[in-house]
Amino acid sequence: MCYDEAMSNFHVSLKKVVDDSYDIAIGADLFETLKADLCHGLMGKIRRFAIITDDLVKPLYADGIASLLSEAGFETEIFTIPHGEKNKTREKKAWLEDAMLSKGFRRDCAVIAVGGGVVTDLAGFTAGTFGRGVPFLNYATTLLAAADASVGGKTAVDTPLATNLIGLFYQPKKVYIDVKAWETLPERELRSGLAETIKHACMADAAFFAYLEEHLDTLLSVSRPGSAQEKEVQRAVCMHIAEKNCQIKYQVVEQDEKETSGLRETLNLGHTVGRAVETVSDYRLLHGEAVAIGLLFQARLGEKSGYLSADEVSRIKALLEKAGLPTEIPDDIDRETLVKKLYTDKKVRNGAIRFVFQKGIGQMMCFEDGSYARAVSETEVRSVL
Amino acid sequence: MCYDEAMSNFHVSLKKVVDDSYDIAIGADLFETLKADLCHGLMGKIRRFAIITDDLVKPLYADGIASLLSEAGFETEIFTIPHGEKNKTREKKAWLEDAMLSKGFRRDCAVIAVGGGVVTDLAGFTAGTFGRGVPFLNYATTLLAAADASVGGKTAVDTPLATNLIGLFYQPKKVYIDVKAWETLPERELRSGLAETIKHACMADAAFFAYLEEHLDTLLSVSRPGSAQEKEVQRAVCMHIAEKNCQIKYQVVEQDEKETSGLRETLNLGHTVGRAVETVSDYRLLHGEAVAIGLLFQARLGEKSGYLSADEVSRIKALLEKAGLPTEIPDDIDRETLVKKLYTDKKVRNGAIRFVFQKGIGQMMCFEDGSYARAVSETEVRSVL
Repeated sequence: MCYDEAMSNFHVSLKKVVDDSYDIAIGADLFETLKADLCHGLMGKIRRFAIITDDLVKPLYADGIASLLSEAGFETEIFTIPHGEKNKTREKKAWLEDAMLSKGFRRDCAVIAVGGGVVTDLAGFTAGTFGRGVPFLNYATTLLAAADASVGGKTAVDTPLATNLIGLFYQPKKVYIDVKAWETLPERELRSGLAETIKHACMADAAFFAYLEEHLDTLLSVSRPGSAQEKEVQRAVCMHIAEKNCQIKYQVVEQDEKETSGLRETLNLGHTVGRAVETVSDYRLLHGEAVAIGLLFQARLGEKSGYLSADEVSRIKALLEKAGLPTEIPDDIDRETLVKKLYTDKKVRNGAIRFVFQKGIGQMMCFEDGSYARAVSETEVRSVL
Repeated sequence: MCYDEAMSNFHVSLKKVVDDSYDIAIGADLFETLKADLCHGLMGKIRRFAIITDDLVKPLYADGIASLLSEAGFETEIFTIPHGEKNKTREKKAWLEDAMLSKGFRRDCAVIAVGGGVVTDLAGFTAGTFGRGVPFLNYATTLLAAADASVGGKTAVDTPLATNLIGLFYQPKKVYIDVKAWETLPERELRSGLAETIKHACMADAAFFAYLEEHLDTLLSVSRPGSAQEKEVQRAVCMHIAEKNCQIKYQVVEQDEKETSGLRETLNLGHTVGRAVETVSDYRLLHGEAVAIGLLFQARLGEKSGYLSADEVSRIKALLEKAGLPTEIPDDIDRETLVKKLYTDKKVRNGAIRFVFQKGIGQMMCFEDGSYARAVSETEVRSVL
């Protein structure tokens, strides 16, 4: 500590190695895997688990997990929020906190999120600030959560003025992707989940894009009854899709966990217009449906700048349509409100709207200054609207 | 990536070196130091600053800082919450977020907290989740914030069911402790701030305890007019107190930033009963007043277990009284409600109330199992009530 009469300066040294590494298990029905992990000490000495879920997922998965863990000697309590993106709010987070506190949960607990993206985003954020951070696990039951929300460590809530802007980078201790759960997804949810999957293919993997063109029908038939052999084929397709999603996402996340280099912004492909459409539609459109619209929007915008060919744009449109996803902004979305909304996007810098673009199929555009996002004028945006 | 038919496992590698080190400047009137730091790139490329303050501090300090930074070419906006611990809530945090969003603040901003502990706790937490974390600075204007809240990286809000349980470990980029600001503190606030200072002396520094016994009157006269020489002596005492507070606190924080080893729990000395009294009094008692009561409580409880002598307990009581702080639980605090409240303390494990204790004056008790806190039965607690 150096000292002079007028002012003294005190240096606090807080340099350390942090290891937030974790595993993602991908398989069909992972209840027993989860139980075995906890019994083998994945969460250290923790015996109390707050299972956070939604009303649709509770009877299908959360109840079963809670019973199994109780039988294994753990203390569990289920906290259920209503389903739907509209519930990913600060108010629901506060409700969860109060419910957990009133049940006696303190710092010596962990959170298990069981559900789709809304549940994993909200539960992860809740865990991240409860007692200044308790560990959490994600048990992802939807394709969307598998492809996006449950992996990557981004947690957040929505506010009236912005989507996903209040939250944390907070990594789970492990993620379970239960591809069997996709069989119980409403078809619209399954289709919606495909948007992030197609996004990943557009970003980073032309072969995976071709795989999707070929195997999408198989995936979309998972909820229908079939022979053992058909089921086996379906399972293999689901596993491959889940794995590819993880692989592509983690190539990015491992290099740029907190969006500091800009690389992680590439995961935002299709989300500039997507997020805006989702909000302006007042969540009438599901997240994936809005992202599908955003994906085609950036492709068309990119085509104008020569980043991809008309043929490539057609392939993207065709694949989105094959997935049963919308590709055009609905007529009843007011264009002016939408343009205004674009300025609340998190990529906005110095008042300018910024987009990330794919380069052909399977690569991302990187601009001269080394960044992946470039400013786009309102005129450019309107030319595609 | 290893693959077997039933399940595949994907390992996400997120190991890294994190450097959250920062400086604490201690001096009289640090506006120019803050400005110079920003001009010299302390916050990198950031040009927009959200100055968070309360209604009492705004005209005294926040307005001045905002003007100075604006003149230096930075964009500033002041966000003012009402003063007082009652406002350290999730609702005020949400209000701040909405206000910042509506003024166009996004991820490319930083927060400057100007005020006491309520402001620095709330602003730090707000910064920690805004855009999943933007950097922040603390400009601490009270003795309490200097001794405790503004340094150490703990941020939080209170909820109806628990104090400081929802929050983050989130380190500021720099802390400014303006000892001249202590001259404008209401006397009650200054006295209240002394409780954490006396706590630090009790915990870790017998010589500092003796220094306080000798120099407390000088500190308590800072707001009164005096000769240049008297002012100089006062300033030296304030600087010494601020420095000792930092030094003692950081001996602990640097070793156990996130309360993982239990060492940081020693900073909780006097807070078990203190926090409970503060809440049960509905914040009629200031934080420091409640901590003073808690300090004497643990000393008496410790005396019964032979951790310190009757004489040492008397010295602690005398010093707290010299600081004008209460030492007894007010008569109108219901004892049963208080005992119940103890079970919401963050140190509670497996349903047992836990206390940390001082060992004589200037050291902490460390128990046989290596922990600094030990379970205390309700009977023991009631014997001192």
